[in-house]
Amino acid sequence: MDNCIFCKIAKGEIPSAKIYEDDKILAFLELNALAEGHTLVVPKEHYENIFDIDQETLKNLISVAQKISERLKETLGADGINFVHRSGAAAEQGVFHFHLHVIPRKKGDGIKMDEWWFSKAKNLSPEQLEAAAKKIRW
Amino acid sequence: MDNCIFCKIAKGEIPSAKIYEDDKILAFLELNALAEGHTLVVPKEHYENIFDIDQETLKNLISVAQKISERLKETLGADGINFVHRSGAAAEQGVFHFHLHVIPRKKGDGIKMDEWWFSKAKNLSPEQLEAAAKKIRW
Repeated sequence: MDNCIFCKIAKGEIPSAKIYEDDKILAFLELNALAEGHTLVVPKEHYENIFDIDQETLKNLISVAQKISERLKETLGADGINFVHRSGAAAEQGVFHFHLHVIPRKKGDGIKMDEWWFSKAKNLSPEQLEAAAKKIRW
Repeated sequence: MDNCIFCKIAKGEIPSAKIYEDDKILAFLELNALAEGHTLVVPKEHYENIFDIDQETLKNLISVAQKISERLKETLGADGINFVHRSGAAAEQGVFHFHLHVIPRKKGDGIKMDEWWFSKAKNLSPEQLEAAAKKIRW
């Protein structure tokens, strides 16, 4: 897609620190990183988000993310891994080409996702949960 | 696994607000929710994290997460979706049975992931990125 930065990276028109590449999937390091080794995994073909990405491509992408997780453990000594994905402006997606963040974590790294998370989360009653589940389940 | 809360939920020994179930995968609503419809997707079999989950199970799980994303859009009017996954105590995993959070988002919902994210992220130089990539790539 014209003017899509991740399409340009996938085509090699913009340089990136690549860590994995096959016919369908590319993984490269995030510039604005939460940690050394913070990786973005993208389909080479342009999909905007979770609502339009092809299921097979998504499955390939998650397999690559798993392999990257192992590599981050082996090569950088990551004690843990976070995946973060954003689909849609409302979900704070920045680049509108599907991507999955793979973030290597170490004990005491100061990233503190939970400080944010638990400032926002609230307990729902069994009745509230069942009312929502009834709408969503299929 | 004994004393694993998600194994007990998968076996029906602890109630949950289920939204999807098949032979391998279960999806149910998170009690301590970031939003109405905040869902956990888990394998029924006990895997601890991204380092030990079977690849086929992971692929099935992400396909279910995609379908749930569509349902959250259709039934609750979600404008966007976040996926969050934590593997390992260092990555702030709370329950040590593999799970993926699927979080429906709406414009102005106040969740503000980026407030946390950009308070922690830092720009890395091309040299720093290439030095890390050289270690990780395979």
